[in-house]
Amino acid sequence: MQRFSSRQLERYPVYLKLLKALKEKGMTTVSSPVLAEMLGYSEEMIRKDFQAVSSSFGVPKKGRDVDAMIEDLESFLGYKSIKKAILFGVGHMGGALLRFHGFADMGLEIVAGIDVKPELIGTKIEGKPIRSFLELPALLREEKIEIAILCVPSAHAQEVAESLYDLGVKAIWNFAPVVLSLPIDALVENVNLASSFAVLSHRLSRTKRK
Amino acid sequence: MQRFSSRQLERYPVYLKLLKALKEKGMTTVSSPVLAEMLGYSEEMIRKDFQAVSSSFGVPKKGRDVDAMIEDLESFLGYKSIKKAILFGVGHMGGALLRFHGFADMGLEIVAGIDVKPELIGTKIEGKPIRSFLELPALLREEKIEIAILCVPSAHAQEVAESLYDLGVKAIWNFAPVVLSLPIDALVENVNLASSFAVLSHRLSRTKRK
Repeated sequence: MQRFSSRQLERYPVYLKLLKALKEKGMTTVSSPVLAEMLGYSEEMIRKDFQAVSSSFGVPKKGRDVDAMIEDLESFLGYKSIKKAILFGVGHMGGALLRFHGFADMGLEIVAGIDVKPELIGTKIEGKPIRSFLELPALLREEKIEIAILCVPSAHAQEVAESLYDLGVKAIWNFAPVVLSLPIDALVENVNLASSFAVLSHRLSRTKRK
Repeated sequence: MQRFSSRQLERYPVYLKLLKALKEKGMTTVSSPVLAEMLGYSEEMIRKDFQAVSSSFGVPKKGRDVDAMIEDLESFLGYKSIKKAILFGVGHMGGALLRFHGFADMGLEIVAGIDVKPELIGTKIEGKPIRSFLELPALLREEKIEIAILCVPSAHAQEVAESLYDLGVKAIWNFAPVVLSLPIDALVENVNLASSFAVLSHRLSRTKRK
């Protein structure tokens, strides 16, 4: 099976979003040079990206079928199969993610939030129950939960991640700005706002210096 | 001036966070092999990353001074100089970012939120006023705003970004899951949750197939 780099995997949702927007505008076919211009990517990279996941992108030069490409991308990204997740830390960021409607399109279903605050436990956000950490083992038995979304304060992220790993939840989507240290078979993907901002901020300071 | 790749820039906040955690635990020096093991990065990459931004990391093999490294990183990342930003779209994500306390550490100050909802305009979130789009030109005249944080719905992101560009705000931190099409001198950095999730989801599906 082909191995994909993170950067390459990150591009597929971008292609999908663009193709859906083009479809909405009434386009039925699109060529890789057109995609390249719209995205600022190289044609070659786009061609390789699609060849790796899609049979609809095999004919060179000719415009490709937008619907078929959307279908291939959604299938590759697993958007049609539900993956259940549990969210830890219902603070500002965690609460926002519980309220976010875009996850359903990605096949991601957050089944519950977990928090330590007594005033939150037993309440619901957008129909999703907030439970205590003590209820976690029962929740994991009841539901086939594969993913944990970590939004706890930095100081607690490592211990929560370790508990999750011990309970068998090995895929962690980490929004806490810390480097988690877990066994090699854990899957951790970080959303690090500081890292993203560092890129923008550095480019801005270079522009000003010119 | 050295050019930095996005991936390299993204690593500096990770180093900084780790060094601050080590400092809190009482460590005063640390070597690159130790950092390499903690982060799962190669020693060589860590050494190159630090050589590019820090004079404190020049002596090989010996442990480096944690305080000096923290200072060099904060200086490189511009955390001590305030950069003012305005946030567009005070929905779930935008509201969470307005309430997020971590930005001050990064030198980022959100001076106001902008929204179209009449019931929001004139209110405050964590002391930050919510204004209407009509007040934007005046706001930009009053304050030296360099960055726009875009949290508007996908359908409006492109037009808002174009207005911002025309008003002279050329650095956009884009949380809307769309590819913005702007002139070449615009600086756009995307936080794309779908892209991040695609990486985790793909790794998870590979694990299951094994």
